[in-house]
Amino acid sequence: MAKKRIFSGMQPSGNFHMGNYQVLANWINMQAEYDCIYAIVDWHALTSSYEDTSRIPERIEHMALDWLSAGLDPEKNIIFVQSHVKEHAELHLLLSMMTPLSWLERVPTYKDKLQQLGEMGKEINTYGFLGYPELMAADIMLYKADAVPVAEDQIPHLELTREIVRRFANLYKPVFPEPQAILSPLLPGIDGRKMSKSYGNEIPYAAEPDELQARVRLMITDPQRVKKTDPGDPDICTVYTFHKIFSPEHSELAGQCRNAGIGCVDCKKRLAQKMITTLADVHGRRKEMAAKPDKIKEILAYGAERARKIAAATMEEVRSIMHLS
Amino acid sequence: MAKKRIFSGMQPSGNFHMGNYQVLANWINMQAEYDCIYAIVDWHALTSSYEDTSRIPERIEHMALDWLSAGLDPEKNIIFVQSHVKEHAELHLLLSMMTPLSWLERVPTYKDKLQQLGEMGKEINTYGFLGYPELMAADIMLYKADAVPVAEDQIPHLELTREIVRRFANLYKPVFPEPQAILSPLLPGIDGRKMSKSYGNEIPYAAEPDELQARVRLMITDPQRVKKTDPGDPDICTVYTFHKIFSPEHSELAGQCRNAGIGCVDCKKRLAQKMITTLADVHGRRKEMAAKPDKIKEILAYGAERARKIAAATMEEVRSIMHLS
Ligand code: SF4
Ligand code: SF4
Repeated sequence: MAKKRIFSGMQPSGNFHMGNYQVLANWINMQAEYDCIYAIVDWHALTSSYEDTSRIPERIEHMALDWLSAGLDPEKNIIFVQSHVKEHAELHLLLSMMTPLSWLERVPTYKDKLQQLGEMGKEINTYGFLGYPELMAADIMLYKADAVPVAEDQIPHLELTREIVRRFANLYKPVFPEPQAILSPLLPGIDGRKMSKSYGNEIPYAAEPDELQARVRLMITDPQRVKKTDPGDPDICTVYTFHKIFSPEHSELAGQCRNAGIGCVDCKKRLAQKMITTLADVHGRRKEMAAKPDKIKEILAYGAERARKIAAATMEEVRSIMHLS
Repeated sequence: MAKKRIFSGMQPSGNFHMGNYQVLANWINMQAEYDCIYAIVDWHALTSSYEDTSRIPERIEHMALDWLSAGLDPEKNIIFVQSHVKEHAELHLLLSMMTPLSWLERVPTYKDKLQQLGEMGKEINTYGFLGYPELMAADIMLYKADAVPVAEDQIPHLELTREIVRRFANLYKPVFPEPQAILSPLLPGIDGRKMSKSYGNEIPYAAEPDELQARVRLMITDPQRVKKTDPGDPDICTVYTFHKIFSPEHSELAGQCRNAGIGCVDCKKRLAQKMITTLADVHGRRKEMAAKPDKIKEILAYGAERARKIAAATMEEVRSIMHLS
């Protein structure tokens, strides 16, 4: 049986942090089981930063470096830049014709994000911003993805894609699978909330050992644990959430925490050490790759070529179904 | 000095009537003075008929036949089908990112047409329907058109294009001209209102002599003129509006009407005769061409190739200005 296909994308927002790294780690875990297509979605980035696009090329390069150095294999996965595959725009336009306006208006993140960006002084209430989930639907459908790894807050967007898939099937022909969500847990910020630069709680992906130690030291722990002799609850501790990713021996650690066998200061030191070791490799690879920007361009061009083949076949089918040329 | 460039488009709605013929006649009058690009805008047609697209190919062919048989020269003008030039979708997407939603919502025809189509039982309140003038802006800007022949009701759409042109200039770089409107008078329907199939007042372009005579006989004249001996006022007479297009000797006729030198019955007969003669040629050419559908396809492919060259150059420039690939 053919492998199931996954599509996912990330905006080249120029703010890659450990939360994104966690998403990448999930992607890397899936590369054997699934046929994976990952896009640096630069057109999406325009929805919130059309006013200054000058740093997009640099951010795309950085994101490609982040992905590749973390271990995303450009042979096993298709890795490309959205705007290199024009079919995304064409399918977006066609889907826009059949998508009720109200479906987009009621996406819960729409009003929230509008307000949030408005407070940051961004004039963001554009036609394209409203159409963000429509473009995401086109991205996913173009590759007939069976599943999409998403964070919890993206679930309403994926639900919209599924609705559009069903509508297309009703109006024309059922050629697109209804993509399933693969929920990816996200690493929280050091204060336990969602990791985000706007909260100032992020751990930069490029952090050097000193900065890593400092950030880990600031992490909130089990607030009930005041003295070293108090037993702790790792399940409500941000430090432990990180240990689960970075420390293979984490369950042992959880036991020690519960019977006050380890103090939070030591526990944090161990985490920082683990993170430093893991990231040292990644940073080393990243440095090597950064010295060869042409190689990065080549990899992205190769990915775009592979993506375009699938996208072109889908569009040929869609045009034929819709009686378009 | 280079000629100014004109862009205009028509939806392949499958309802070509004398009103559209009049628009075509205006286009033909401009083909010497301007560098003209005319598109059969099939993607636009989806905004109001996405639910049944099966007749689009036939309608495109018919529209091409209508245009060519009326005398639109495919060498002097670039004649093509919108969906053959994918750059329309790409520019549409990019412009969508910077177009405030409110600009589209306040286009006066938007709410009107929504209501009108709603009354016809069409579920039309889609994202793409709201974006109609955005797609029109992309069409015009893609060719850097200096002017657009429009009917009066299209003026707000063109004004929006001009606003988007100015916004692009402010955000990025002033590379697009602000297109000027060339107002085209439109032939009214036989009842004096706008010619439209939905009013039942149209004269089909393909009408045979009998039908033409019957439709002209039903035209409203100066309502004050009851008897043949009453003087008439040609300026408020629908018949005379048609004479101005079809009868070179129309000013003489106006004089006769004003001094009761001609009766309405005769006046209508003369008009019908003129229309029959003019259309006989056109219909003859159309029949000949309809027998060679491959030739039509070839002409449209040739037009698309020429259009694509201009569109590709514009997109290269836009991508470079916006730092996109
Ligand atoms: S010992 Fe570690 S897991 Fe337990 S509360 Fe302290 S930091 Fe968290
Ligand atoms: S004579 Fe001709 S122009 Fe005058 S009112 Fe009658 S139809 Fe109209």
